[in-house]
Amino acid sequence: MGNSFGQLFRITTFGESHGAAVGVVIDGCPPRLPLDAAEIQRALDRRRPGQSALTTPRREGDSVEILSGVFEGRTLGTPIALVARNSDQRSGDYEALRGVFRPSHADFAYDAKYGFRDHRGGGRSSARETLARVAAGAVAAKILRVAAGVEIRAYVESVAEIAAPVLSEFPDIAAVDATPVRCPVPEVAARMEARIAAARDAGDSLGGTIRCRVRNVPAGLGEPVFDRVEADLAKAMLSIPASKGFEIGSGFAGTLLAGSAHNDPFCVRDGRVRPAANNAGGTLGGISDGEEIFFRVAFKPTPSIALVQRAANAAGEEIELRVGGRHDPCVLPRAVPVVEAMTALVLVDHLLRHSAQNGTLRL
Amino acid sequence: MGNSFGQLFRITTFGESHGAAVGVVIDGCPPRLPLDAAEIQRALDRRRPGQSALTTPRREGDSVEILSGVFEGRTLGTPIALVARNSDQRSGDYEALRGVFRPSHADFAYDAKYGFRDHRGGGRSSARETLARVAAGAVAAKILRVAAGVEIRAYVESVAEIAAPVLSEFPDIAAVDATPVRCPVPEVAARMEARIAAARDAGDSLGGTIRCRVRNVPAGLGEPVFDRVEADLAKAMLSIPASKGFEIGSGFAGTLLAGSAHNDPFCVRDGRVRPAANNAGGTLGGISDGEEIFFRVAFKPTPSIALVQRAANAAGEEIELRVGGRHDPCVLPRAVPVVEAMTALVLVDHLLRHSAQNGTLRL
Amino acid sequence: MGNSFGQLFRITTFGESHGAAVGVVIDGCPPRLPLDAAEIQRALDRRRPGQSALTTPRREGDSVEILSGVFEGRTLGTPIALVARNSDQRSGDYEALRGVFRPSHADFAYDAKYGFRDHRGGGRSSARETLARVAAGAVAAKILRVAAGVEIRAYVESVAEIAAPVLSEFPDIAAVDATPVRCPVPEVAARMEARIAAARDAGDSLGGTIRCRVRNVPAGLGEPVFDRVEADLAKAMLSIPASKGFEIGSGFAGTLLAGSAHNDPFCVRDGRVRPAANNAGGTLGGISDGEEIFFRVAFKPTPSIALVQRAANAAGEEIELRVGGRHDPCVLPRAVPVVEAMTALVLVDHLLRHSAQNGTLRL
Amino acid sequence: MGNSFGQLFRITTFGESHGAAVGVVIDGCPPRLPLDAAEIQRALDRRRPGQSALTTPRREGDSVEILSGVFEGRTLGTPIALVARNSDQRSGDYEALRGVFRPSHADFAYDAKYGFRDHRGGGRSSARETLARVAAGAVAAKILRVAAGVEIRAYVESVAEIAAPVLSEFPDIAAVDATPVRCPVPEVAARMEARIAAARDAGDSLGGTIRCRVRNVPAGLGEPVFDRVEADLAKAMLSIPASKGFEIGSGFAGTLLAGSAHNDPFCVRDGRVRPAANNAGGTLGGISDGEEIFFRVAFKPTPSIALVQRAANAAGEEIELRVGGRHDPCVLPRAVPVVEAMTALVLVDHLLRHSAQNGTLRL
Repeated sequence: MGNSFGQLFRITTFGESHGAAVGVVIDGCPPRLPLDAAEIQRALDRRRPGQSALTTPRREGDSVEILSGVFEGRTLGTPIALVARNSDQRSGDYEALRGVFRPSHADFAYDAKYGFRDHRGGGRSSARETLARVAAGAVAAKILRVAAGVEIRAYVESVAEIAAPVLSEFPDIAAVDATPVRCPVPEVAARMEARIAAARDAGDSLGGTIRCRVRNVPAGLGEPVFDRVEADLAKAMLSIPASKGFEIGSGFAGTLLAGSAHNDPFCVRDGRVRPAANNAGGTLGGISDGEEIFFRVAFKPTPSIALVQRAANAAGEEIELRVGGRHDPCVLPRAVPVVEAMTALVLVDHLLRHSAQNGTLRL
Repeated sequence: MGNSFGQLFRITTFGESHGAAVGVVIDGCPPRLPLDAAEIQRALDRRRPGQSALTTPRREGDSVEILSGVFEGRTLGTPIALVARNSDQRSGDYEALRGVFRPSHADFAYDAKYGFRDHRGGGRSSARETLARVAAGAVAAKILRVAAGVEIRAYVESVAEIAAPVLSEFPDIAAVDATPVRCPVPEVAARMEARIAAARDAGDSLGGTIRCRVRNVPAGLGEPVFDRVEADLAKAMLSIPASKGFEIGSGFAGTLLAGSAHNDPFCVRDGRVRPAANNAGGTLGGISDGEEIFFRVAFKPTPSIALVQRAANAAGEEIELRVGGRHDPCVLPRAVPVVEAMTALVLVDHLLRHSAQNGTLRL
Repeated sequence: MGNSFGQLFRITTFGESHGAAVGVVIDGCPPRLPLDAAEIQRALDRRRPGQSALTTPRREGDSVEILSGVFEGRTLGTPIALVARNSDQRSGDYEALRGVFRPSHADFAYDAKYGFRDHRGGGRSSARETLARVAAGAVAAKILRVAAGVEIRAYVESVAEIAAPVLSEFPDIAAVDATPVRCPVPEVAARMEARIAAARDAGDSLGGTIRCRVRNVPAGLGEPVFDRVEADLAKAMLSIPASKGFEIGSGFAGTLLAGSAHNDPFCVRDGRVRPAANNAGGTLGGISDGEEIFFRVAFKPTPSIALVQRAANAAGEEIELRVGGRHDPCVLPRAVPVVEAMTALVLVDHLLRHSAQNGTLRL
Repeated sequence: MGNSFGQLFRITTFGESHGAAVGVVIDGCPPRLPLDAAEIQRALDRRRPGQSALTTPRREGDSVEILSGVFEGRTLGTPIALVARNSDQRSGDYEALRGVFRPSHADFAYDAKYGFRDHRGGGRSSARETLARVAAGAVAAKILRVAAGVEIRAYVESVAEIAAPVLSEFPDIAAVDATPVRCPVPEVAARMEARIAAARDAGDSLGGTIRCRVRNVPAGLGEPVFDRVEADLAKAMLSIPASKGFEIGSGFAGTLLAGSAHNDPFCVRDGRVRPAANNAGGTLGGISDGEEIFFRVAFKPTPSIALVQRAANAAGEEIELRVGGRHDPCVLPRAVPVVEAMTALVLVDHLLRHSAQNGTLRL
């Protein structure tokens, strides 16, 4: 259980890193939406390994096939199954890892839970599973765009201690993708890039934070008291491998302010009531208020490093471990499209839930 | 929608702040668990207003009644309905707030979503709803204790810039409850208390962070890829009114470390494989690993302050607002039992889900 | 688990027959619907015992209170909690039934499942629980009426071997309620009534069938492949105590026809494509086709009879049993509003689900 | 929506009849269950077309591939994706049906709902979708067998007016599969076979009923009040294409009896309390009582017939229609494994749900 996400735009992902395929079934996509494999592929290409010297050279192919739910270029309203074969499965590379618990990886916990696991490349716990999320997220993002003009933009805000300033403007996707590190501030990106290259050369890895911003979100999305927009976003983000934290609006820093400083008076601009400062980050009481939604996600340094490490195995012995294989020295750049995909999945679900009670959806 | 939480231990809360009652229905409590109203009441008393000079003097009564699901002192396995009447409903106090959007409150967003709302004391968006969560959480916590010896302990770690150090020992509940501010470090608690009193006297409010620690969690709980323990905890925490952030284990600070420093080698202690440092905070790959789970939650300063503020109303006019009523200058102390309750609800759900597939539950 | 019904208009019922109360929480009712306790009470009064000499004289009161979700006469879009106290709880009557397994009652199975039960009046398995369904169904029916003019009419079609003919016209509620037996054909109703009175006087009971018809259902409701309208109706009906069968449209009788006789050609009437005969009973492929939905439900004879019976007890002994208490000699008349309520709950859920993807709801 | 079934053993099916593939994802299969493609294929072969002169000669291949969730011959506890390519897709055959509403088919209703559909062979409404159910059902049946020795046996009980007597013994699968019509009473099977052949030769079709019996069901499965075993079975059966009715135990016939005749006293046999006659059909109050579960499902005559029929099209014109293609003159024999699969899916879900609260599952 636990492999589905969403109530009304419900995805179920499947697949192990080195099994036959990874994929996703989307149940709940509205009918008549124009859709083809090429636009899903474009989203996947942003997540694909081997894009630059900063990412794993593993060539996965990641070629997506639509198995169902689309006919003559439009969605049918029936389940959309998307599958990508695992083309580059060198399982042999991983034989030495059978029964080994790599530090800060999920191996040990999977063993504890299931009593059995696919040890090759992390199996189900591999970040390769996020391919399926990005594929589904491309469909979600398209609905949001077509129905409401919603735009979602994530970027790398920090790598280790190198951080970009808060951007006053909504960043352009071209600016984000202009550098391999996916930070839209060129001079900061250059420093991040050098820092990651140095870590890679040292057999080490780095973490950081991703900022995500969403504009044109209609006011009124979110289902309190539990299915608040920020609660669902928090779950979505913490479900991404290697994520360790989430904050929305003023976040942890906001806890340092007094209420009189943090409170955000409503004012009237262009005849519309709006919060003056958007400290909240686009939601109040769990419901979107029509302002930009912005939040931040923490990612730990990739646990796969080339350095020799201490570890243990299923026989209960401590061992010395040198992990081979091909790994990202910093997962952040490739996590950007995953953050965007999960954001789209949260918001499209709330868009549909709102329409259930208010008849608001127009495609 | 959105008023239920959990898959197998499923709660549904109901009630507006100044309606007839607030309450909760629990569906999925195992049968034969000893349970009486008094032990639920004890949990509610920790959340109750009027406990000290730091909390709102509103006297809610908060007297819980069990309407169903318990017979002769034991649970029946049928739904448990728990209700608390709203005894102190001075609605008249709130008439001036009809049609007013208080700064950083949910009024505006509720209006945008529902086109209609109960303006009295926040209605459904009031933190009074958390009473229902604490009641349900008491039942969840009891199951966790009986079935697995799980202990959950939250406390106030910071108020504004005043922060307690990380505690090496699992704090005792008596130490937590020894001060009205619910920080188990007496000298820090005293400074927090003074800080809150000063804010209150200035008509202002403060935010802060709550730390939660959980021990004796069996390894193997959590349902990747989406229903990870940390993802469900993140959702649970961000569903609490006024929360703005969540981090588990090394959290945001961990993003500053290199992988070689952050990685947590497994070692063998007492014949058992365990991570050396527990940087992860008790979960790996979304599954509990048998170590202590610890995380932190950010709460913004209470938006209800006594100072005059700018605001707007439903007629689209900017107004000057002075909020009457009785409010907490700092929500943190009373949020401690809410954090514990939501934690219990997440964990008991995973305990049952794990038992579904592995036949592990013993009450 | 299992005490919730519906996806988007989701009800959760609670309460044991002789506990403090029975009730229901509705999560997902759209906001701004005019609603008051009196109209819910009217629906409950049709289910109430003691309406005639054919029903149990137990006086339950059945007085419903709205605890939440309604403000100033309109729904808030928040959970609506409805509760009825169990006023007439003579528990002492039932002490002799502790540990006894009454024939064809749920006692034995509840013991097998939960290892513990409330033996008074069936506890949770009592038909008194259906009060909660009727209360929620009244809200559902109102939405259907307001949003789409949907009308739901159930009536008793047969009692034992006495059966009403198929009615060419949609029966009026006044005709249904004109007789205590709720069969709108007066001469048949009279025979049924006499038959039930005779069974009652003999200390025996009777079963029968209820027909339900629904008109003005918009075409397009239903979510294949599993959540077909007829599948959800079948579940809804078989969830009613004492029900043993369900058939829609031509049902079991239709299995005797050849395809050429059973097939229902589409024709064009008033410029609209419609099936010529509506053999299907209002759905095709699980989706409403705009025709009248009609189906039939089988109810076994009430297991509570006054005659002495053989039974067994929890000690594993065979015993002789004479059940005291007050029972319906025929459950059918009071099941009519329950069938209508469950039908309304199924259809309103599909109305909302359809609106989620197509923005169709208008209240 | 609506393409998932089950709470804890949750399947999601996908695929159109003439799209790229049909398939299913199972989320919730316990880990460590031995499983290979061959045993799933054996189940599919019983559903496969072209088995005899009584079924459509369409050769689908129906070759299943396991894409995930199984490693080295055992389940991982992760999602199991099963896919069968649509090898024989002669789409051209169907071009004449674009925009045509075939009598008693789902075409019209799909158009009404989705405004767009895949007209080839019924698209998503095709019975080919049941292949996915049978594949998932094979996994469910294996768990039931391994964990509890549960055996599920369905067979054709009637075709048009030709009906088999009630069988005193639990029928052997070899007896069921001994004839192409899947009725285990040879002389009745022969008459059915002749009747179907005659219908086929006349360009016509027939309906009938399937009986299903289940033995060794542990007592205690089922989740009242809504998720009763019989309610979930009713939904499962009415979700099968062409089904029109369901009855359990004494069913509709039982409505003719008095309570004194229908009631089923408990007696003590072999030291165990059991109902004397099992009129209930294996459940009481929605919970299995340890007796054999038996029920009956009605299937209408296949709507696809070779005779010329009246129909209408999307342009709102009445037309004359001769359906080409290859069809079953009687769907019953191939529906037998589908009924078994859906039964297995219902029961395994309840087995897991029971284990969630009682720790009972042992694989």
